[in-house]
Amino acid sequence: MKKVVEQHLVEFELTKEFLDRFRQALDEKQADFIRQALEDVKPEDIASLLTEFSADEGKFVLDLFSSELQAQVVNNLDPDIRRRNLSVYEPPAIAGMLNQLASDDSADILNELPVKEREEVLVLLDHELREQVTELLRYEANVAGGLMAKELIKARIDWTVVQCVDEIRKQAENVSRFYQVYVVDEQNRLLGKVALQDLIISEAKTIVADIYEADIVSVQTYQEGGEVADIMKKYDLESLPVVNMQNQLVGRITIDDIVDVITEQAEEERQLMAGISEDVEEDDSVWRNTRARLPWLVIGIFGGLVNAKFMGLFETELARVTAIAFFIPLIQATGGNVGIQSSSLIVQSLANPTFVDISLWQRLVKVFFVALLNGLFLSLLVIVANIVLFNEYELSTVVSIALFSVIVFASFIGTITPLILNRFGFNPALASGPFITTTNDLLGLTIYFFTVHLML
Amino acid sequence: MKKVVEQHLVEFELTKEFLDRFRQALDEKQADFIRQALEDVKPEDIASLLTEFSADEGKFVLDLFSSELQAQVVNNLDPDIRRRNLSVYEPPAIAGMLNQLASDDSADILNELPVKEREEVLVLLDHELREQVTELLRYEANVAGGLMAKELIKARIDWTVVQCVDEIRKQAENVSRFYQVYVVDEQNRLLGKVALQDLIISEAKTIVADIYEADIVSVQTYQEGGEVADIMKKYDLESLPVVNMQNQLVGRITIDDIVDVITEQAEEERQLMAGISEDVEEDDSVWRNTRARLPWLVIGIFGGLVNAKFMGLFETELARVTAIAFFIPLIQATGGNVGIQSSSLIVQSLANPTFVDISLWQRLVKVFFVALLNGLFLSLLVIVANIVLFNEYELSTVVSIALFSVIVFASFIGTITPLILNRFGFNPALASGPFITTTNDLLGLTIYFFTVHLML
Repeated sequence: MKKVVEQHLVEFELTKEFLDRFRQALDEKQADFIRQALEDVKPEDIASLLTEFSADEGKFVLDLFSSELQAQVVNNLDPDIRRRNLSVYEPPAIAGMLNQLASDDSADILNELPVKEREEVLVLLDHELREQVTELLRYEANVAGGLMAKELIKARIDWTVVQCVDEIRKQAENVSRFYQVYVVDEQNRLLGKVALQDLIISEAKTIVADIYEADIVSVQTYQEGGEVADIMKKYDLESLPVVNMQNQLVGRITIDDIVDVITEQAEEERQLMAGISEDVEEDDSVWRNTRARLPWLVIGIFGGLVNAKFMGLFETELARVTAIAFFIPLIQATGGNVGIQSSSLIVQSLANPTFVDISLWQRLVKVFFVALLNGLFLSLLVIVANIVLFNEYELSTVVSIALFSVIVFASFIGTITPLILNRFGFNPALASGPFITTTNDLLGLTIYFFTVHLML
Repeated sequence: MKKVVEQHLVEFELTKEFLDRFRQALDEKQADFIRQALEDVKPEDIASLLTEFSADEGKFVLDLFSSELQAQVVNNLDPDIRRRNLSVYEPPAIAGMLNQLASDDSADILNELPVKEREEVLVLLDHELREQVTELLRYEANVAGGLMAKELIKARIDWTVVQCVDEIRKQAENVSRFYQVYVVDEQNRLLGKVALQDLIISEAKTIVADIYEADIVSVQTYQEGGEVADIMKKYDLESLPVVNMQNQLVGRITIDDIVDVITEQAEEERQLMAGISEDVEEDDSVWRNTRARLPWLVIGIFGGLVNAKFMGLFETELARVTAIAFFIPLIQATGGNVGIQSSSLIVQSLANPTFVDISLWQRLVKVFFVALLNGLFLSLLVIVANIVLFNEYELSTVVSIALFSVIVFASFIGTITPLILNRFGFNPALASGPFITTTNDLLGLTIYFFTVHLML
């Protein structure tokens, strides 16, 4: 009987003190201390810990453990860190680790290696894994084929429950998490599934055909990761079989991979909205952080220069009534805010398509009415505030009229831009960032000066 | 043997034609057509379909089906739509549906009902469900206690595999998705788990103590949904036991609920970044859309008015050199862009805390260097462009110096604001929206005019 250790039950939390002590142990190569300190620590937590140390130090730590634990730790490293850490390993050692992992994880790690090394490791893999991985490497990373694992448990529709259980026994060590047995015909075509609990409570001689559910959702190898995520979310699935064009079962996607897809999508969207052009993190180098920010800033600067050039055309007007300049920030900020609000609602509704697609026309009519209401309210607010604050009737009227027009136009542009981007295959979230702000700054200025020109 | 129907295997896709035909059937109350049309359709898809119809029409459709299917459809409706649709049902009918659902789903639906109706439905629930739901209603929606379901399968550590299987048989109809059997002692304290595949392949007389894994992660009832999501993501868990302060097993959270939590967090963040102050969707009413947008727009307008008032102080300078006004958009746009870039990187790193927390000091030093590099590059760009475009040396120098200072200050404010918001318990993403833009517009203007005042 295993001993019950209470502290196993709580999540591992490393303290600064532990880290300092660990660093010292590493410096002094205290293998015993390290082995003991990490004895009950999960691979995920060892991976976080190794992030703090160099590749050579990481190797020293990992060499103290079994190749299975090594593999699990490496599998849980961030891709950047993993590439760095694996660079100090020889191909046979890497192959030894990959042999302990599921086919999809092996394929992901191989994909990160330099081409030459990838080939060297590939030939050293166990025969079965090599075949599986070779197939997976054919697919792009972000389609169902690239997300799936080859490991799964399947049963022929004419088997008995006993045969199923034998198969599970054979496969149990390869398949780390399984929730159901997939049912196929003699040509490996997917027919349905048997839930594990149904297997457990069925008589040994029951035929699979009598207990399986034909009601099963599957995806094709070429379907996009986002689409797969939507299907799994909608039907609350923890795993999803992947079939080829002949409906033959070729793999299985599990929910943990999809959680990663969803998280990455949200991050990509945030970066687009924030005008960051590379996948970058705060703790990346100063240079990388700078490089990720520069492109959109440069575009913003060019927008600003065009703004300046444009305003130059109205120099005489500005010289006559300096107060015109006072309201440029108000007009531009509101245009930017309205544009981003509009585009982000479109991005949201593109991400959660409803059953009946709204036509462009319906969208625009609605956006127009929302803009009308917002515009009326804000223009009224500005005219009252301006009269109180500046005691200026004529300019206040001009500012209000311009503001109203800017709100309507910015709503329109904020609505149409993500739809156009989406149509041409770009991520529509691009339209909720500096792109729309830069456009709307110019738009706002044009409308404002046009109004000034006409009315003042 | 069940008949194999090929079309079960693919995802259901409704066409506009089907919708029109369905609408006609509903108008003419063609019960047979509706029953037949929806025969093999999944509850999730029926729920999407009903979104297009009124509550009464929805009730007409649902009344054609078993209360189990009714319950599943209602469970898959959007909360807004569900509230509307359930308003045409009497408490006994609602209780009849909830009796078919898991405790967590029942509690969620009850939480959406008006207080009086909630009490009426609660007393009509089956005894066991009523007890479970009453317990769940004690917790806030977004903590582990509010996310968990009471249904789970547990075994005492001294049971045999046969006893476990008997328990599974008893519970199988209540527990819709289970992945492991939780192992507890005689006081119901969580000790570990047995994976289903281990149960399947073990001998009948094996004692649970010999096959269970003591290595199990659990959460306390009071832990935040975001924290629960992080734990499940980190350890790739499909379900997570919830314990009380005495480490007694009180419930279980499954990954599908956490996927919803993750999706909602991403949506909330997008709305904060876009300056939308209510949970609103494009297809909500014009009025609701307007209301959700107004608050931040009004704040932006006030920011704009303060900008105008501030600029008024420099009216003589502006009258003397009108060209000063030309560069206001450039300065403000860059300040806004830099601020949002900085804050969004902090938001990202707050969302994925690394093992060793970076100190505020380290953060600021790094941000300062990134700002320095960006600032130098952009100022140089502007000075060269200005000399080429405007042939103005003095003003160009002033603009460049102001731009450089704005970039440094905006980086600082963009970094510090989300950290402060986070410290005081607000969502730091708030700092990546109009909040930071409004602040930085003013900041930019102040720095610019201060520089102008000193140098021109």
